Amino acid sequence: MSETTSFPPAPARAEGSADGSREALTVLGMLAYLELAAFSRLAADAGLAPSLRQRLELSGMAREALERIDRLAVRVGELGGDLESAMAPFAGVLVDFDGRTPASTWWERLLKAYVGYNVADDFCRQLAQALDPATRGLVEELLEDDAHARLVVDSLAAAGEQDPTLASRLALWGRRLVGEALGVVQRVLSEQPAMRDLVARSVPDADPGEAQQRLFAQLTAEHSRRMDRLGLAA
Amino acid sequence: MSETTSFPPAPARAEGSADGSREALTVLGMLAYLELAAFSRLAADAGLAPSLRQRLELSGMAREALERIDRLAVRVGELGGDLESAMAPFAGVLVDFDGRTPASTWWERLLKAYVGYNVADDFCRQLAQALDPATRGLVEELLEDDAHARLVVDSLAAAGEQDPTLASRLALWGRRLVGEALGVVQRVLSEQPAMRDLVARSVPDADPGEAQQRLFAQLTAEHSRRMDRLGLAA
Repeated sequence: MSETTSFPPAPARAEGSADGSREALTVLGMLAYLELAAFSRLAADAGLAPSLRQRLELSGMAREALERIDRLAVRVGELGGDLESAMAPFAGVLVDFDGRTPASTWWERLLKAYVGYNVADDFCRQLAQALDPATRGLVEELLEDDAHARLVVDSLAAAGEQDPTLASRLALWGRRLVGEALGVVQRVLSEQPAMRDLVARSVPDADPGEAQQRLFAQLTAEHSRRMDRLGLAA
Repeated sequence: MSETTSFPPAPARAEGSADGSREALTVLGMLAYLELAAFSRLAADAGLAPSLRQRLELSGMAREALERIDRLAVRVGELGGDLESAMAPFAGVLVDFDGRTPASTWWERLLKAYVGYNVADDFCRQLAQALDPATRGLVEELLEDDAHARLVVDSLAAAGEQDPTLASRLALWGRRLVGEALGVVQRVLSEQPAMRDLVARSVPDADPGEAQQRLFAQLTAEHSRRMDRLGLAA
């Protein structure tokens, strides 16, 4: 997928930047890859679940991630793209993040997924603002389901309330996670010119550097709100 | 699920042994648990897959295992049962098998799934012979899909042909696996009176001990045929 890193000008620009389909395919591909990673994580969580009921629940959530990939694949096809090619530039984008943030307890694992996926979701939502209405609608709809978020918020908030030491350790862990997650966003932006264009377009009255600064400010603010809801200091 | 291990007579007997639904629920519960284990294994395989294409393929196979659980849940409901309760007696039935057969290479892992699941499938098919036609039909239909088997046979046969040392190591591994898998069947039979009844009924002209011997002879013969197809000595 070297066409997305050689900019400007590269042959791939001709693939459909004029109608915005290059940008849409980039966002759809990233989201599909994030869903595939979510599938793997939820399936692994299911295997670790303490009860059969939780195992079935988490397996069901893993399946929903694959169903979201199907929906994304349909839109990718409508735009004349191919799912696998759209996903390929993002394969491994989370490997570094995972390596740098090894979760040593179940709570750390829960918070990691919660922080990481919410930063990614907010990033996708922000990028989608500058896409065609059909793609934007799909992205927003797919990111609405928050069954996993509810599960995490309920159990982390309850655990933190009962154990102030755990709460302060998790608060520290949350700060580390969001730093690493924003680092991933930074790297994706530096590697994907289509995403930089979208960020610039999503803040029309700002220059590109300013638009990126606003994006990061917003991602950080959303993260702080979520930590508040968990009763953890951001 | 102590009702299935306290026999005879226990209150749960009243749940429907007369019409065979107790036996049907036992087989459906075991099969559902095996599918859940297959889901976990295929999802983990997907995470290890060397290419994005294979990762998507294996994730799709994992999803199909969950879809089979849905089909089983419908039949469990028709018989007046509850999926989770039907599965519960089998939770952990493969933990011992997994612990005793740690696969140290990708090939060993492939062969382990192939040997283990085929013994389990043959066992379910055999038990289903003595069930009501609707349950038997469903079990046979669900066990027909062999996309994973084709994938395994193709890659193992090709690898074994190119590397005789690998082939002889895998043949040894296959013998160890089938021994452990038959040990699991033995333990399930000793813990589940409903299954012993079914085995006895599936060979009408034999006494219960003889019926079990024939079952094991058949499971072993089917395994040998499969090893032959892989070019591995059973």
